[in-house]
Amino acid sequence: MKVEIINIGDELLIGQVVNTNAAWMARALSDAGLKVCRVSVVADQGDHIKDAIDHALDQSDAVLMTGGLGPTKDDITKHVLCEYYDSSLVFNEPAFENIKHLLKLRGREIREHHKRQAEIPDICTPVENKFGTAPGLWFEQGGKILVSMPGVPFEMEAMMEEHIIPSLAGFNTADISHHKTILTHGIGESYLAEKITPWEDQLPPYIKLAFLPQPGIVRLRLTTRQRHKSTAEKEIAKQIEKLQILIPELIFGYGDDTMEEVVGNLLRQQGKTLTTAESCTGGYLAHLITSVPGSSDYYTGSVVSYANDIKEQALSVRHNSLLAYGAVSEQVVKEMAEGIRQGFHSDYALATSGIAGPGGGTLEKPVGTVWVALAGPDKTIAKKFRFGEHRGRNIRRSALAALNMLRLELLSYSSHPPPK
Amino acid sequence: MKVEIINIGDELLIGQVVNTNAAWMARALSDAGLKVCRVSVVADQGDHIKDAIDHALDQSDAVLMTGGLGPTKDDITKHVLCEYYDSSLVFNEPAFENIKHLLKLRGREIREHHKRQAEIPDICTPVENKFGTAPGLWFEQGGKILVSMPGVPFEMEAMMEEHIIPSLAGFNTADISHHKTILTHGIGESYLAEKITPWEDQLPPYIKLAFLPQPGIVRLRLTTRQRHKSTAEKEIAKQIEKLQILIPELIFGYGDDTMEEVVGNLLRQQGKTLTTAESCTGGYLAHLITSVPGSSDYYTGSVVSYANDIKEQALSVRHNSLLAYGAVSEQVVKEMAEGIRQGFHSDYALATSGIAGPGGGTLEKPVGTVWVALAGPDKTIAKKFRFGEHRGRNIRRSALAALNMLRLELLSYSSHPPPK
Repeated sequence: MKVEIINIGDELLIGQVVNTNAAWMARALSDAGLKVCRVSVVADQGDHIKDAIDHALDQSDAVLMTGGLGPTKDDITKHVLCEYYDSSLVFNEPAFENIKHLLKLRGREIREHHKRQAEIPDICTPVENKFGTAPGLWFEQGGKILVSMPGVPFEMEAMMEEHIIPSLAGFNTADISHHKTILTHGIGESYLAEKITPWEDQLPPYIKLAFLPQPGIVRLRLTTRQRHKSTAEKEIAKQIEKLQILIPELIFGYGDDTMEEVVGNLLRQQGKTLTTAESCTGGYLAHLITSVPGSSDYYTGSVVSYANDIKEQALSVRHNSLLAYGAVSEQVVKEMAEGIRQGFHSDYALATSGIAGPGGGTLEKPVGTVWVALAGPDKTIAKKFRFGEHRGRNIRRSALAALNMLRLELLSYSSHPPPK
Repeated sequence: MKVEIINIGDELLIGQVVNTNAAWMARALSDAGLKVCRVSVVADQGDHIKDAIDHALDQSDAVLMTGGLGPTKDDITKHVLCEYYDSSLVFNEPAFENIKHLLKLRGREIREHHKRQAEIPDICTPVENKFGTAPGLWFEQGGKILVSMPGVPFEMEAMMEEHIIPSLAGFNTADISHHKTILTHGIGESYLAEKITPWEDQLPPYIKLAFLPQPGIVRLRLTTRQRHKSTAEKEIAKQIEKLQILIPELIFGYGDDTMEEVVGNLLRQQGKTLTTAESCTGGYLAHLITSVPGSSDYYTGSVVSYANDIKEQALSVRHNSLLAYGAVSEQVVKEMAEGIRQGFHSDYALATSGIAGPGGGTLEKPVGTVWVALAGPDKTIAKKFRFGEHRGRNIRRSALAALNMLRLELLSYSSHPPPK
């Protein structure tokens, strides 16, 4: 069953509100095996809404709309649908019962406009709204379904989960679309694409691959459509196994995993502790690590040494090293890592020192030059990176690179040469 | 000029990614006085893309597309546009120069696929991509404009700001919609609404007010449509002056200002330095401060003391204070602020200690309880906050509250009673 989404609302067309309804609906429908072909956002204007409905019903089996069902004057969806289906508004007793029940729960009186909320087009069926006074409107004509819902996210979500998705799934006989996302760190999109070409070329035609790059991370999404979820999962797992053999060290997680969770779990499993010493990342590395609930189990603290004298005082970096090599150097970043590891008594320590930009670059050390060090029980290693010109992304990429260095060490990859 | 947006990408239709590009584009276009009539999201499929373009060009003067311009096999937009405009791909020298420049900055080699990125449809003009290898594609035919951009947000945003919006604005002749956003911190949306009711009631009918709440911040947006930008600006400035008299201490900035920039500018103006000691904010406060370019002028460093023994060792918090009052207490947070101020030799120091959640709450100190302290040359002050249950939002709200405490001190507001 092909589904289209139409979100109505001027606030979406001036960018005042991000259209999270579309993302939530698309994900919920996709999880239920229903394919969303298109999302349209249109203004609160009758002709725009009718045009969007025409186009959507022409292409799809079901159209799900949100917005414009409220009690105020700018809410016109119900009237537009009345015209569209050549129908008229009638008072609907079950819808009114629901409104009365809701108002009673909230200790409010029934007003005239509440009765108007219970008036719906005569050819549609009302859909219960658990959290608001506007009922959903379910139309069926010529084998096509159209459902109009309120735009308030939690009202729409409850309606979708309890009534609309189960009903649509009942109509659905087609295959289920199944996805899995593989998270990689360490090389850019096009280099990764080159590296995994042999694997990509052998993928069966019914498994689709998409590259989704973010700063520091490239996500690979595998999609297949199958009748049975278990078959789809098995097919995808088989392909992931092959990819793991090709790029074992580049894959750090799947789906909604984050680098900081993955590293945190490894530390917890191995009973190890971590501290950090940050210059160019300025606290962002500590923030990523501590954004994970329970991180105090393995993370004890950090020194953000933005000034050189704090590097000396709090991290025991030698004055001579700063003079001879500068703060952004292999020598200093290693001393930072060793200094915090010894000072704060942890098993591992990560340190960053670099030029985040936009100022501070030189010919020899341009903006984006970053040193990352990892000090452990046996050795201290360091690696130089060359990122871009954007301060925020340099900070994020440096922090991810540091965490990944520890990940590789905890998985005993770090003795191998780094991936090209 | 009527504009339509088409976002291409399967990831948007399965709800893996929220369509923030559409919101950003709609806002930027609206700010430039360009009206967005419709947003469509379609799959990476040739027939769907062509159908969306047909429909959009039929209704609008300009169509802005994002997505599908990358170097991998799932990126088909360029080829679809070639077919749509009955054009063919040609190697474009300026586009290739830009790619070479970008790769050189990153110290990378030029590969075959980079040359393919410089191949563009012969009837279009390339638009410079400052941050990526895929150029934008600008088509003009039959008085209608179509621009195809990469889907990577920061690549698209730079392209829009520097090239596309200025060019489209040149075609535009209608009234300009003018916005200004006032940023407040310190009280919730409904209390703020109550407090500014007299001001809201006297606003002229052609100036619209919208409340846009975020965790810790309530933005007030004033909008007016006028032919002349200068008239609109004057009208809005007059209203803002009146609001400043009503809530002087609650307004911390305007437009895209951030709390960390505002506080950083005050420190720089007054020639003062800052350090931080963080427990519950776990480095996020340092990260906010150092996300501002040039922050090393006034910010020297931080200790993230997640573990209690680091509070003692690195911040000179007394063992007895931790035993008697616990880490989340007025006494300990004040000692943290004083300890880092003395140890790292700064004029001011901020400290945070609280229960970010989800674990760690008690009856006496539930999740969301946060102490913030400010140590300065003359005195140390502390304040207790009670935030919510969400870890990420508690961290952000704590950091904003700390920065605001320093802002009020630097502006000499802190001796007044805190705003209700």
